[in-house]
Amino acid sequence: MTESTTTADTPDVGILGGTGNLGAALAQRWSSAGLRVVIGSRDPERAVTRAAELRQDLPSEAGSLTGGSNADAATAPVVVAAIPTEGAGELVAPLSEQLAGGVLVSTLSPLEFDADGPRPGRVEAGSAAELLAAAAPSARVVAGFHTVSAVTLADLGRALDEDVLLCGDDEDALAEVAALVDDHLEGARAVVVGPLRLAVALEASTAVLISTNRRHRAHAGLRVTGL
Amino acid sequence: MTESTTTADTPDVGILGGTGNLGAALAQRWSSAGLRVVIGSRDPERAVTRAAELRQDLPSEAGSLTGGSNADAATAPVVVAAIPTEGAGELVAPLSEQLAGGVLVSTLSPLEFDADGPRPGRVEAGSAAELLAAAAPSARVVAGFHTVSAVTLADLGRALDEDVLLCGDDEDALAEVAALVDDHLEGARAVVVGPLRLAVALEASTAVLISTNRRHRAHAGLRVTGL
Repeated sequence: MTESTTTADTPDVGILGGTGNLGAALAQRWSSAGLRVVIGSRDPERAVTRAAELRQDLPSEAGSLTGGSNADAATAPVVVAAIPTEGAGELVAPLSEQLAGGVLVSTLSPLEFDADGPRPGRVEAGSAAELLAAAAPSARVVAGFHTVSAVTLADLGRALDEDVLLCGDDEDALAEVAALVDDHLEGARAVVVGPLRLAVALEASTAVLISTNRRHRAHAGLRVTGL
Repeated sequence: MTESTTTADTPDVGILGGTGNLGAALAQRWSSAGLRVVIGSRDPERAVTRAAELRQDLPSEAGSLTGGSNADAATAPVVVAAIPTEGAGELVAPLSEQLAGGVLVSTLSPLEFDADGPRPGRVEAGSAAELLAAAAPSARVVAGFHTVSAVTLADLGRALDEDVLLCGDDEDALAEVAALVDDHLEGARAVVVGPLRLAVALEASTAVLISTNRRHRAHAGLRVTGL
């Protein structure tokens, strides 16, 4: 494992907002599985510190997990956006040249919370994934990971028991992200459900899962049967 | 099994739009499991004929499966709406007095189709289930069965391998519908996900399942893991 406090050379995956719960947990899983992962943050120092913390839980055979700016993370061929929907367009737009031609994965789920729990939020672009696609128009956007619990992911010793539903309009990009799931997230299976415009439905499923978790005191996931 | 061509006395379940694929398949499953089911239609004669056809596939120990008007179906303590979203409010509103206090199950999924497949449709009420709730304001509305394939249901010899996600605001109504799944749909499990306002997300999941089926040439269902 590299001990570099800046980005590794030729990372496999970059994570925008990689200091958050989902981003950090994905970074740990993927670096544990041998990948070179860079987590980015608006505050690069924070990402460097967080990466050092996250590395302490990794097995000795891990790849690399380093921290840097979001622009550092955006140098990877697959860039995962694990950022809040609010402000997501403004965060991604300045990176759009770097992201051009690459794979940009939207894990975003616009949600509203009140006393009755979560509900799907509305986004003018149709979905948060389409909002990112508009901010980085030459990136090949895939939406996915909406129903994967950060808590479950962060429990590194535990294989996942769920599918990762993906949608997108670029078959090669879908295949690249599917490989990150099938080959590097033990127990998970990628299921491509269709075009990017279905992201609105996948994003809404996050509200269902969070509500289910609250009701059943669980960390639920989804499996697609019958395939 | 009753051979009556009108509604059975004290039916267990009524199905509005019971001559359609989903309604007919649910009627077969439930009557096979011993329940008394009435399928309703705008055209009662059509429902009577369809019920007679459907009865031919039932095992000898079945309950009853009869046909009648939608008003006949609405006499049951649990009434399942298996009707198109378009015109649903107009169909249900005249039945609202009959439905008052009873359980009304919305299986509706507003969808739009074009060359790229299905996508979630928009309903002014927020969801089709909330549209029905507005049309029958004293009914206790539960939304569910959105991801259950009519083709799979109609294959009576085959146990289901999927969960039925339910949402609603009335716990007793949720429990009644959950029992219809857990006790009378072999292989299926009811999972209550939260309040009725989550129906928009469950309804959108139908587009995901239909798209997945087309892509994978399957009859996919969902399971919730981790509960």
